[in-house]
Amino acid sequence: MFTLDPRLQQDTIPAGELPLSRLLLMNDCSYPWLILVPRRPDIREIFQLDEADRGQLLHESTRLSQALYAICRPDKLNIAALGNVVAQLHLHHVARYRTDPAWPAPIWGRAPAVPYAPEAAKAFILQISAHLPELSPLTSP
Amino acid sequence: MFTLDPRLQQDTIPAGELPLSRLLLMNDCSYPWLILVPRRPDIREIFQLDEADRGQLLHESTRLSQALYAICRPDKLNIAALGNVVAQLHLHHVARYRTDPAWPAPIWGRAPAVPYAPEAAKAFILQISAHLPELSPLTSP
Repeated sequence: MFTLDPRLQQDTIPAGELPLSRLLLMNDCSYPWLILVPRRPDIREIFQLDEADRGQLLHESTRLSQALYAICRPDKLNIAALGNVVAQLHLHHVARYRTDPAWPAPIWGRAPAVPYAPEAAKAFILQISAHLPELSPLTSP
Repeated sequence: MFTLDPRLQQDTIPAGELPLSRLLLMNDCSYPWLILVPRRPDIREIFQLDEADRGQLLHESTRLSQALYAICRPDKLNIAALGNVVAQLHLHHVARYRTDPAWPAPIWGRAPAVPYAPEAAKAFILQISAHLPELSPLTSP
């Protein structure tokens, strides 16, 4: 059974469910930063998903990337499956700007997270939802 | 027309061509580190590829990931499309170990590259090639 890694749960705000993945907003308003977590147990690497799930993850990543571009108009997207700290497969999507605090370095491990004001997180998730018709409310813990 | 970004050309050793992507070995023997560059002009983001090319990139990434797992037996793979320095779409694949110089941080911008001895690079590319039947020798600059 799928359960979200406790560290991911602690560091993020749930944004909803896509057909394969849970969508999480990283609770760090330094960067527009969303994470897809396929609801499959015991998967650490993209290649360990079956072919249909891999295709679906790519589809969800593409839709999320397009939403981030449309809303945030970033200079660049950073998309990454790292997992050195949290091994459960999760795919980062970060909108980057030449003016952001870490540019041009990767964002991970740079600076302490700056938590969202609750209303700001809610507003951003609403904007994202408007671009992701397949997103439904969170159903399971 | 596709031409490889000069910075990628400078920092890597060509390993061959897959149906969509050029395969490059990062010239840094600190980590087993390979890069896929789709041979499509003016593409910066995965979502800008057409759907067939996106599927092919995922296929090539999966095969490369499986090859890295089989050869290197890493603790974790890191797969990332960043591009803050080199905007041309390129997908990093890095075999990570708990004992490597950057663990658990991401590898980018950590320490100066340690170039391969030519024979060691050649031997590693041969190992990778043996796991990638679709890889053919480099055809164009």
